[in-house]
Amino acid sequence: MEDSGPDRRGSVFAGLVGVSQVVGLLSVVLTGVWMGHYRGGFAWDGSAREFNLHPLCMVLGLVLLHGDAILVYRVFSNEAKKKVKLLHGTIHLLALVTSIVGVAAVFDFHSASLIPHLYSLHSWGGLTTLILFSLQWVMGLLFFLLPGASSWLRATYLPIHVFCGLTLLVMAIGTSLLGITEKLLFSIGSSYPQFPPEGVLANFLGVLLVLFGVLLCYLVTREEYRRPPNPEEEALSVHFKTLTEGETPATP
Amino acid sequence: MEDSGPDRRGSVFAGLVGVSQVVGLLSVVLTGVWMGHYRGGFAWDGSAREFNLHPLCMVLGLVLLHGDAILVYRVFSNEAKKKVKLLHGTIHLLALVTSIVGVAAVFDFHSASLIPHLYSLHSWGGLTTLILFSLQWVMGLLFFLLPGASSWLRATYLPIHVFCGLTLLVMAIGTSLLGITEKLLFSIGSSYPQFPPEGVLANFLGVLLVLFGVLLCYLVTREEYRRPPNPEEEALSVHFKTLTEGETPATP
Repeated sequence: MEDSGPDRRGSVFAGLVGVSQVVGLLSVVLTGVWMGHYRGGFAWDGSAREFNLHPLCMVLGLVLLHGDAILVYRVFSNEAKKKVKLLHGTIHLLALVTSIVGVAAVFDFHSASLIPHLYSLHSWGGLTTLILFSLQWVMGLLFFLLPGASSWLRATYLPIHVFCGLTLLVMAIGTSLLGITEKLLFSIGSSYPQFPPEGVLANFLGVLLVLFGVLLCYLVTREEYRRPPNPEEEALSVHFKTLTEGETPATP
Repeated sequence: MEDSGPDRRGSVFAGLVGVSQVVGLLSVVLTGVWMGHYRGGFAWDGSAREFNLHPLCMVLGLVLLHGDAILVYRVFSNEAKKKVKLLHGTIHLLALVTSIVGVAAVFDFHSASLIPHLYSLHSWGGLTTLILFSLQWVMGLLFFLLPGASSWLRATYLPIHVFCGLTLLVMAIGTSLLGITEKLLFSIGSSYPQFPPEGVLANFLGVLLVLFGVLLCYLVTREEYRRPPNPEEEALSVHFKTLTEGETPATP
Protein backbone atom coordinates (compact mmCIF):
# COMPACT_ATOMS: atom_id res chain seq x y z
CA MET A 1 0.00 0.00 0.00
CA GLU A 2 2.82 2.31 0.96
CA ASP A 3 4.29 1.45 -2.39
CA SER A 4 1.14 2.28 -4.35
CA GLY A 5 2.87 4.73 -6.64
CA PRO A 6 5.17 7.68 -7.11
CA ASP A 7 2.24 10.14 -6.82
CA ARG A 8 1.31 9.13 -3.31
CA ARG A 9 4.98 8.87 -2.35
CA GLY A 10 5.56 12.35 -3.74
CA SER A 11 2.68 13.89 -1.84
CA VAL A 12 3.70 12.25 1.45
CA PHE A 13 7.23 13.55 0.85
CA ALA A 14 5.96 17.07 0.06
CA GLY A 15 3.74 16.99 3.14
CA LEU A 16 6.60 15.95 5.41
CA VAL A 17 8.92 18.59 3.94
CA GLY A 18 6.17 21.18 4.47
CA VAL A 19 5.69 20.16 8.09
CA SER A 20 9.46 20.25 8.67
CA GLN A 21 9.62 23.81 7.33
CA VAL A 22 6.69 24.99 9.46
CA VAL A 23 8.24 23.35 12.52
CA GLY A 24 11.69 24.79 11.76
CA LEU A 25 10.43 28.33 11.14
CA LEU A 26 8.18 28.18 14.20
CA SER A 27 11.24 27.21 16.27
CA VAL A 28 13.07 30.33 15.14
CA VAL A 29 9.98 32.49 15.77
CA LEU A 30 9.46 31.02 19.27
CA THR A 31 13.13 31.62 20.09
CA GLY A 32 12.70 35.22 18.95
CA VAL A 33 9.54 35.65 21.04
CA TRP A 34 11.19 34.08 24.09
CA MET A 35 14.28 36.33 23.90
CA GLY A 36 12.45 39.38 22.51
CA HIS A 37 9.34 39.39 24.69
CA TYR A 38 10.33 37.58 27.91
CA ARG A 39 14.06 38.37 28.09
CA GLY A 40 14.19 42.04 27.06
CA GLY A 41 15.11 42.02 23.37
CA PHE A 42 18.38 42.27 21.49
CA ALA A 43 21.49 44.46 21.45
CA TRP A 44 25.27 44.19 20.94
CA ASP A 45 26.44 45.85 24.17
CA GLY A 46 27.76 43.04 26.40
CA SER A 47 24.48 42.92 28.35
CA ALA A 48 21.99 40.07 28.68
CA ARG A 49 20.39 41.49 25.54
CA GLU A 50 23.54 40.54 23.65
CA PHE A 51 23.27 37.05 25.11
CA ASN A 52 19.73 36.92 23.67
CA LEU A 53 21.20 36.88 20.17
CA HIS A 54 22.93 33.59 20.98
CA PRO A 55 19.88 31.26 21.04
CA LEU A 56 18.32 33.03 18.04
CA CYS A 57 21.45 32.70 15.87
CA MET A 58 22.09 29.10 16.91
CA VAL A 59 18.54 27.89 16.22
CA LEU A 60 18.50 29.77 12.90
CA GLY A 61 22.01 28.74 11.84
CA LEU A 62 23.03 25.44 13.36
CA VAL A 63 19.52 23.93 13.33
CA LEU A 64 17.23 25.39 10.62
CA LEU A 65 19.78 26.36 7.94
CA HIS A 66 21.90 23.29 8.69
CA GLY A 67 18.86 21.02 8.31
CA ASP A 68 17.64 22.74 5.17
CA ALA A 69 21.10 22.57 3.57
CA ILE A 70 20.92 18.80 4.02
CA LEU A 71 17.34 18.63 2.76
CA VAL A 72 18.07 20.31 -0.60
CA TYR A 73 19.40 16.98 -1.94
CA ARG A 74 15.96 15.47 -1.46
CA VAL A 75 13.83 18.51 -2.38
CA PHE A 76 15.71 19.33 -5.60
CA SER A 77 16.31 15.75 -6.62
CA ASN A 78 15.45 16.52 -10.25
CA GLU A 79 17.78 19.50 -10.61
CA ALA A 80 21.34 19.24 -11.94
CA LYS A 81 23.60 17.77 -9.27
CA LYS A 82 26.17 20.57 -9.53
CA LYS A 83 23.59 23.28 -8.81
CA VAL A 84 22.27 21.37 -5.82
CA LYS A 85 25.81 20.92 -4.49
CA LEU A 86 26.42 24.67 -4.73
CA LEU A 87 23.14 25.39 -2.96
CA HIS A 88 24.02 22.82 -0.26
CA GLY A 89 27.44 24.44 0.30
CA THR A 90 26.06 27.99 0.23
CA ILE A 91 23.29 27.36 2.80
CA HIS A 92 25.84 25.60 5.00
CA LEU A 93 28.10 28.65 4.74
CA LEU A 94 25.20 30.88 5.82
CA ALA A 95 24.58 28.47 8.71
CA LEU A 96 28.25 28.66 9.69
CA VAL A 97 28.39 32.48 9.62
CA THR A 98 25.13 32.80 11.59
CA SER A 99 26.40 30.31 14.17
CA ILE A 100 29.73 32.10 14.58
CA VAL A 101 27.87 35.38 15.25
CA GLY A 102 25.77 33.50 17.84
CA VAL A 103 28.82 32.09 19.59
CA ALA A 104 30.60 35.46 19.51
CA ALA A 105 27.55 36.98 21.25
CA VAL A 106 27.70 34.57 24.18
CA PHE A 107 31.50 34.81 24.56
CA ASP A 108 31.26 38.61 24.55
CA PHE A 109 28.44 38.53 27.12
CA HIS A 110 30.39 36.14 29.39
CA SER A 111 33.50 38.32 29.18
CA ALA A 112 31.56 41.52 29.92
CA SER A 113 29.78 39.86 32.87
CA LEU A 114 32.94 38.13 34.20
CA ILE A 115 31.29 34.71 33.80
CA PRO A 116 33.83 31.90 33.10
CA HIS A 117 33.76 30.40 29.63
CA LEU A 118 33.16 26.79 28.63
CA TYR A 119 32.37 25.20 32.00
CA SER A 120 28.99 23.64 31.13
CA LEU A 121 28.01 20.53 29.20
CA HIS A 122 26.04 22.84 26.87
CA SER A 123 29.19 24.81 26.04
CA TRP A 124 31.27 21.65 25.55
CA GLY A 125 28.64 20.20 23.22
CA GLY A 126 28.12 23.47 21.37
CA LEU A 127 31.78 24.24 20.73
CA THR A 128 32.51 20.66 19.66
CA THR A 129 29.55 20.76 17.27
CA LEU A 130 30.59 24.10 15.77
CA ILE A 131 34.24 23.07 15.30
CA LEU A 132 33.26 19.76 13.68
CA PHE A 133 30.65 21.58 11.56
CA SER A 134 33.33 23.97 10.26
CA LEU A 135 35.65 21.04 9.54
CA GLN A 136 32.82 19.21 7.77
CA TRP A 137 32.21 22.27 5.59
CA VAL A 138 35.89 22.58 4.63
CA MET A 139 36.12 18.83 3.91
CA GLY A 140 32.95 19.02 1.78
CA LEU A 141 34.45 21.90 -0.19
CA LEU A 142 37.75 20.05 -0.76
CA PHE A 143 36.19 16.72 -1.66
CA PHE A 144 33.05 17.64 -3.59
CA LEU A 145 33.23 21.21 -4.94
CA LEU A 146 36.90 21.67 -5.81
CA PRO A 147 38.21 19.47 -8.61
CA GLY A 148 41.17 17.86 -6.81
CA ALA A 149 39.66 14.73 -5.26
CA SER A 150 39.51 11.51 -7.29
CA SER A 151 36.15 9.84 -7.76
CA TRP A 152 37.37 6.95 -5.58
CA LEU A 153 38.19 9.39 -2.77
CA ARG A 154 34.83 11.13 -3.19
CA ALA A 155 32.94 7.85 -3.13
CA THR A 156 34.84 6.69 -0.05
CA TYR A 157 34.31 9.92 1.84
CA LEU A 158 30.64 10.48 0.92
CA PRO A 159 28.99 8.08 3.39
CA ILE A 160 31.18 9.50 6.18
CA HIS A 161 30.22 13.06 5.13
CA VAL A 162 26.53 12.13 5.20
CA PHE A 163 26.72 10.31 8.54
CA CYS A 164 28.67 13.17 10.13
CA GLY A 165 26.25 15.76 8.73
CA LEU A 166 23.20 14.10 10.28
CA THR A 167 25.10 13.43 13.52
CA LEU A 168 26.08 17.11 13.75
CA LEU A 169 22.46 18.17 13.15
CA VAL A 170 21.34 15.92 16.01
CA MET A 171 24.18 17.25 18.20
CA ALA A 172 23.15 20.83 17.39
CA ILE A 173 19.57 20.06 18.43
CA GLY A 174 20.68 18.24 21.60
CA THR A 175 22.92 21.19 22.51
CA SER A 176 20.01 23.59 21.92
CA LEU A 177 17.87 21.62 24.37
CA LEU A 178 20.67 21.88 26.95
CA GLY A 179 20.77 25.62 26.32
CA ILE A 180 17.00 25.89 26.83
CA THR A 181 17.25 24.04 30.15
CA GLU A 182 20.22 26.14 31.33
CA LYS A 183 18.53 29.43 30.38
CA LEU A 184 15.26 28.48 32.09
CA LEU A 185 16.98 27.41 35.30
CA PHE A 186 19.14 30.58 35.35
CA SER A 187 16.28 32.97 34.61
CA ILE A 188 13.08 31.47 36.04
CA GLY A 189 14.47 28.57 38.11
CA SER A 190 12.26 29.10 41.16
CA SER A 191 8.99 29.55 39.27
CA TYR A 192 9.67 26.97 36.51
CA PRO A 193 7.88 24.17 38.46
CA GLN A 194 4.68 26.27 38.50
CA PHE A 195 4.35 26.07 34.69
CA PRO A 196 4.76 29.81 33.90
CA PRO A 197 4.08 30.80 30.25
CA GLU A 198 7.80 31.39 29.60
CA GLY A 199 8.69 27.90 30.82
CA VAL A 200 5.93 26.24 28.79
CA LEU A 201 6.90 28.22 25.68
CA ALA A 202 10.56 27.19 26.03
CA ASN A 203 9.63 23.53 26.63
CA PHE A 204 7.42 23.66 23.54
CA LEU A 205 10.37 25.12 21.60
CA GLY A 206 12.37 22.06 22.70
CA VAL A 207 9.62 19.74 21.45
CA LEU A 208 9.59 21.52 18.06
CA LEU A 209 13.38 21.21 17.74
CA VAL A 210 13.18 17.46 18.41
CA LEU A 211 10.37 17.13 15.87
CA PHE A 212 12.43 19.03 13.27
CA GLY A 213 15.36 16.65 13.84
CA VAL A 214 13.21 13.52 13.61
CA LEU A 215 11.55 14.73 10.38
CA LEU A 216 14.88 15.65 8.80
CA CYS A 217 16.50 12.33 9.70
CA TYR A 218 13.45 10.44 8.39
CA LEU A 219 13.36 12.34 5.08
CA VAL A 220 17.09 11.93 4.50
CA THR A 221 17.41 8.25 5.44
CA ARG A 222 14.32 6.86 3.65
CA GLU A 223 15.43 5.11 0.50
CA GLU A 224 12.30 6.04 -1.48
CA TYR A 225 13.04 9.77 -1.18
CA ARG A 226 16.51 9.37 -2.67
CA ARG A 227 17.59 11.21 -5.77
CA PRO A 228 16.47 8.96 -8.68
CA PRO A 229 19.20 7.44 -10.86
CA ASN A 230 20.00 9.60 -13.88
CA PRO A 231 22.12 8.21 -16.72
CA GLU A 232 23.48 11.67 -17.47
CA GLU A 233 24.95 11.87 -14.01
CA GLU A 234 26.44 8.39 -14.05
CA ALA A 235 29.86 9.61 -13.02
CA LEU A 236 28.41 11.23 -9.92
CA SER A 237 25.74 8.70 -9.01
CA VAL A 238 28.35 6.49 -7.41
CA HIS A 239 28.21 8.90 -4.49
CA PHE A 240 24.60 8.16 -3.80
CA LYS A 241 25.08 4.45 -4.30
CA THR A 242 27.82 4.63 -1.73
CA LEU A 243 25.68 6.71 0.58
CA THR A 244 22.98 4.10 0.86
CA GLU A 245 24.70 0.84 0.07
CA GLY A 246 27.98 1.58 1.82
CA GLU A 247 30.09 -0.09 -0.87
CA THR A 248 33.20 1.54 -2.25
CA PRO A 249 34.43 0.75 -5.73
CA ALA A 250 37.31 -1.71 -5.73
CA THR A 251 39.30 0.45 -8.12
CA PRO A 252 39.72 4.21 -8.39
CA MET B 1 41.32 0.31 0.76
CA GLU B 2 38.35 0.33 3.12
CA ASP B 3 37.00 -2.56 1.14
CA SER B 4 40.18 -4.58 1.32
CA GLY B 5 38.54 -7.64 2.82
CA PRO B 6 36.22 -9.16 5.38
CA ASP B 7 39.09 -9.65 7.87
CA ARG B 8 39.91 -5.97 8.16
CA ARG B 9 36.22 -5.08 8.14
CA GLY B 10 35.61 -7.62 10.90
CA SER B 11 38.40 -6.31 13.10
CA VAL B 12 37.31 -2.68 12.67
CA PHE B 13 33.77 -3.78 13.56
CA ALA B 14 34.98 -5.73 16.62
CA GLY B 15 37.08 -2.76 17.69
CA LEU B 16 34.17 -0.33 17.42
CA VAL B 17 31.85 -2.70 19.30
CA GLY B 18 34.52 -3.05 22.01
CA VAL B 19 34.89 0.72 22.33
CA SER B 20 31.10 1.14 22.48
CA GLN B 21 30.90 -1.36 25.34
CA VAL B 22 33.73 0.27 27.29
CA VAL B 23 32.12 3.69 26.78
CA GLY B 24 28.64 2.39 27.75
CA LEU B 25 29.84 0.59 30.88
CA LEU B 26 31.99 3.56 31.89
CA SER B 27 28.88 5.77 31.59
CA VAL B 28 27.02 3.56 34.06
CA VAL B 29 30.04 3.47 36.42
CA LEU B 30 30.46 7.26 36.28
CA THR B 31 26.74 7.74 37.00
CA GLY B 32 27.13 5.40 39.99
CA VAL B 33 30.21 7.29 41.23
CA TRP B 34 28.47 10.65 40.79
CA MET B 35 25.34 9.61 42.70
CA GLY B 36 27.14 7.28 45.14
CA HIS B 37 30.17 9.39 46.02
CA TYR B 38 29.13 13.01 45.42
CA ARG B 39 25.37 12.81 46.10
CA GLY B 40 25.18 10.55 49.18
CA GLY B 41 24.40 7.08 47.81
CA PHE B 42 21.19 5.16 47.28
CA ALA B 43 18.03 4.26 49.24
CA TRP B 44 14.28 3.81 48.64
CA ASP B 45 12.95 6.20 51.27
CA GLY B 46 11.62 9.25 49.39
CA SER B 47 14.83 11.20 50.10
CA ALA B 48 17.39 12.57 47.63
CA ARG B 49 19.06 9.16 47.90
CA GLU B 50 16.00 7.66 46.24
CA PHE B 51 16.30 10.26 43.50
CA ASN B 52 19.89 9.04 43.00
CA LEU B 53 18.57 5.74 41.68
CA HIS B 54 16.89 7.62 38.82
CA PRO B 55 19.99 8.57 36.77
CA LEU B 56 21.60 5.19 37.43
CA CYS B 57 18.57 3.19 36.25
CA MET B 58 17.98 5.42 33.22
CA VAL B 59 21.57 5.30 31.97
CA LEU B 60 21.69 1.53 32.55
CA GLY B 61 18.24 0.80 31.10
CA LEU B 62 17.26 3.36 28.52
CA VAL B 63 20.79 3.95 27.20
CA LEU B 64 23.15 0.97 27.70
CA LEU B 65 20.68 -1.95 27.59
CA HIS B 66 18.59 -0.22 24.90
CA GLY B 67 21.71 0.29 22.76
CA ASP B 68 22.99 -3.23 23.31
CA ALA B 69 19.60 -4.75 22.47
CA ILE B 70 19.86 -2.99 19.10
CA LEU B 71 23.48 -4.04 18.63
CA VAL B 72 22.84 -7.80 19.00
CA TYR B 73 21.63 -7.91 15.38
CA ARG B 74 25.08 -6.86 14.25
CA VAL B 75 27.17 -8.72 16.85
CA PHE B 76 25.39 -12.08 16.45
CA SER B 77 24.90 -11.79 12.72
CA ASN B 78 25.88 -15.44 12.19
CA GLU B 79 23.48 -16.89 14.78
CA ALA B 80 19.98 -18.13 13.96
CA LYS B 81 17.66 -15.18 13.42
CA LYS B 82 15.04 -16.45 15.86
CA LYS B 83 17.52 -16.66 18.75
CA VAL B 84 18.78 -13.15 18.04
CA LYS B 85 15.21 -11.84 17.95
CA LEU B 86 14.52 -13.39 21.35
CA LEU B 87 17.72 -11.90 22.77
CA HIS B 88 16.80 -8.50 21.28
CA GLY B 89 13.32 -8.62 22.86
CA THR B 90 14.64 -9.88 26.22
CA ILE B 91 17.33 -7.20 26.62
CA HIS B 92 14.73 -4.59 25.64
CA LEU B 93 12.41 -5.96 28.33
CA LEU B 94 15.20 -5.66 30.90
CA ALA B 95 15.79 -2.10 29.68
CA LEU B 96 12.08 -1.33 30.06
CA VAL B 97 11.84 -2.74 33.61
CA THR B 98 15.03 -0.93 34.71
CA SER B 99 13.73 2.33 33.24
CA ILE B 100 10.35 1.99 34.93
CA VAL B 101 12.10 1.52 38.30
CA GLY B 102 14.15 4.65 37.52
CA VAL B 103 11.07 6.71 36.69
CA ALA B 104 9.20 5.40 39.78
CA ALA B 105 12.15 6.57 41.92
CA VAL B 106 11.97 10.16 40.69
CA PHE B 107 8.15 10.34 40.90
CA ASP B 108 8.30 8.99 44.48
CA PHE B 109 11.02 11.49 45.39
CA HIS B 110 9.07 14.41 43.87
CA SER B 111 5.89 13.36 45.74
CA ALA B 112 7.73 12.98 49.07
CA SER B 113 9.45 16.37 48.62
CA LEU B 114 6.30 18.12 47.32
CA ILE B 115 8.01 19.02 44.05
CA PRO B 116 5.58 19.30 41.09
CA HIS B 117 5.82 16.57 38.47
CA LEU B 118 6.55 16.92 34.76
CA TYR B 119 7.25 20.63 34.48
CA SER B 120 10.69 20.46 32.83
CA LEU B 121 11.82 19.78 29.28
CA HIS B 122 13.81 16.84 30.70
CA SER B 123 10.66 15.29 32.14
CA TRP B 124 8.66 15.88 28.93
CA GLY B 125 11.41 14.28 26.87
CA GLY B 126 11.92 11.41 29.29
CA LEU B 127 8.26 10.45 29.66
CA THR B 128 7.67 10.70 25.90
CA THR B 129 10.70 8.50 25.26
CA LEU B 130 9.64 5.90 27.83
CA ILE B 131 6.03 5.72 26.57
CA LEU B 132 7.16 5.39 22.94
CA PHE B 133 9.80 2.84 24.00
CA SER B 134 7.10 0.72 25.69
CA LEU B 135 4.88 1.00 22.61
CA GLN B 136 7.82 0.07 20.38
CA TRP B 137 8.43 -3.05 22.52
CA VAL B 138 4.79 -4.14 22.33
CA MET B 139 4.67 -3.51 18.57
CA GLY B 140 7.90 -5.49 18.11
CA LEU B 141 6.41 -8.39 20.06
CA LEU B 142 3.18 -8.35 18.02
CA PHE B 143 4.85 -7.99 14.64
CA PHE B 144 8.03 -10.03 14.93
CA LEU B 145 7.83 -12.54 17.80
CA LEU B 146 4.17 -13.60 17.80
CA PRO B 147 3.02 -15.51 14.72
CA GLY B 148 0.02 -13.32 13.76
CA ALA B 149 1.55 -10.74 11.40
CA SER B 150 1.85 -11.51 7.70
CA SER B 151 5.28 -11.28 6.09
CA TRP B 152 4.05 -8.27 4.11
CA LEU B 153 3.07 -6.51 7.34
CA ARG B 154 6.41 -7.42 8.94
CA ALA B 155 8.36 -6.18 5.95
CA THR B 156 6.38 -2.93 5.87
CA TYR B 157 6.77 -2.28 9.58
CA LEU B 158 10.46 -3.24 9.91
CA PRO B 159 12.07 -0.04 8.57
CA ILE B 160 9.75 2.02 10.79
CA HIS B 161 10.66 -0.17 13.80
CA VAL B 162 14.38 0.30 13.07
CA PHE B 163 14.09 4.07 12.53
CA CYS B 164 12.02 4.51 15.70
CA GLY B 165 14.44 2.35 17.72
CA LEU B 166 17.46 4.46 16.82
CA THR B 167 15.46 7.69 17.25
CA LEU B 168 14.40 6.58 20.74
CA LEU B 169 18.00 5.74 21.65
CA VAL B 170 19.07 9.24 20.58
CA MET B 171 16.12 10.76 22.49
CA ALA B 172 17.10 8.77 25.60
CA ILE B 173 20.66 10.09 25.37
CA GLY B 174 19.47 13.66 24.75
CA THR B 175 17.13 13.42 27.74
CA SER B 176 20.00 12.09 29.87
CA LEU B 177 22.10 15.13 28.97
CA LEU B 178 19.20 17.39 30.02
CA GLY B 179 19.03 15.46 33.30
CA ILE B 180 22.78 15.95 33.88
CA THR B 181 22.45 19.71 33.29
CA GLU B 182 19.39 19.99 35.58
CA LYS B 183 21.02 17.99 38.37
CA LEU B 184 24.26 20.01 38.20
CA LEU B 185 22.45 23.36 38.27
CA PHE B 186 20.22 22.22 41.16
CA SER B 187 23.04 20.77 43.25
CA ILE B 188 26.23 22.73 42.48
CA GLY B 189 24.84 25.63 40.44
CA SER B 190 26.91 28.35 42.07
CA SER B 191 30.24 26.50 41.94
CA TYR B 192 29.72 24.80 38.54
CA PRO B 193 31.51 27.67 36.66
CA GLN B 194 34.65 27.03 38.76
CA PHE B 195 35.13 23.56 37.25
CA PRO B 196 34.64 21.50 40.46
CA PRO B 197 35.45 17.75 40.14
CA GLU B 198 31.73 16.84 40.32
CA GLY B 199 30.88 19.17 37.43
CA VAL B 200 33.75 17.95 35.27
CA LEU B 201 32.85 14.31 36.00
CA ALA B 202 29.21 14.91 35.04
CA ASN B 203 30.21 16.78 31.85
CA PHE B 204 32.52 13.90 30.97
CA LEU B 205 29.60 11.50 31.55
CA GLY B 206 27.64 13.54 29.00
CA VAL B 207 30.49 13.29 26.49
CA LEU B 208 30.60 9.48 26.96
CA LEU B 209 26.84 9.19 26.41
CA VAL B 210 27.10 11.14 23.15
CA LEU B 211 30.02 8.95 22.05
CA PHE B 212 28.00 5.81 22.85
CA GLY B 213 25.11 7.09 20.72
CA VAL B 214 27.33 8.03 17.78
CA LEU B 215 29.09 4.62 17.85
CA LEU B 216 25.79 2.73 18.03
CA CYS B 217 24.22 4.71 15.17
CA TYR B 218 27.35 4.21 13.06
CA LEU B 219 27.52 0.45 13.69
CA VAL B 220 23.82 -0.04 12.97
CA THR B 221 23.55 2.11 9.86
CA ARG B 222 26.74 0.99 8.04
CA GLU B 223 25.78 -1.41 5.27
CA GLU B 224 28.95 -3.51 5.56
CA TYR B 225 28.12 -4.54 9.14
CA ARG B 226 24.72 -5.91 8.13
CA ARG B 227 23.72 -9.49 8.73
CA PRO B 228 25.02 -11.39 5.66
CA PRO B 229 22.42 -12.99 3.36
CA ASN B 230 21.68 -16.59 4.31
CA PRO B 231 19.67 -18.81 1.93
CA GLU B 232 18.22 -20.76 4.88
CA GLU B 233 16.63 -17.62 6.20
CA GLU B 234 15.24 -16.49 2.87
CA ALA B 235 11.73 -16.00 4.22
CA LEU B 236 13.02 -13.64 6.87
CA SER B 237 15.72 -11.85 4.89
CA VAL B 238 13.10 -9.65 3.29
CA HIS B 239 13.08 -7.75 6.59
CA PHE B 240 16.69 -6.74 6.23
CA LYS B 241 16.27 -5.91 2.58
CA THR B 242 13.43 -3.65 3.56
CA LEU B 243 15.45 -2.15 6.35
CA THR B 244 18.19 -0.93 4.09
CA GLU B 245 16.55 -0.53 0.73
CA GLY B 246 13.22 0.77 1.93
CA GLU B 247 11.21 -1.16 -0.63
CA THR B 248 8.14 -3.11 0.33
CA PRO B 249 7.04 -6.15 -1.64
CA ALA B 250 4.21 -5.40 -4.02
CA THR B 251 2.27 -8.44 -2.87
CA PRO B 252 1.72 -9.91 0.61
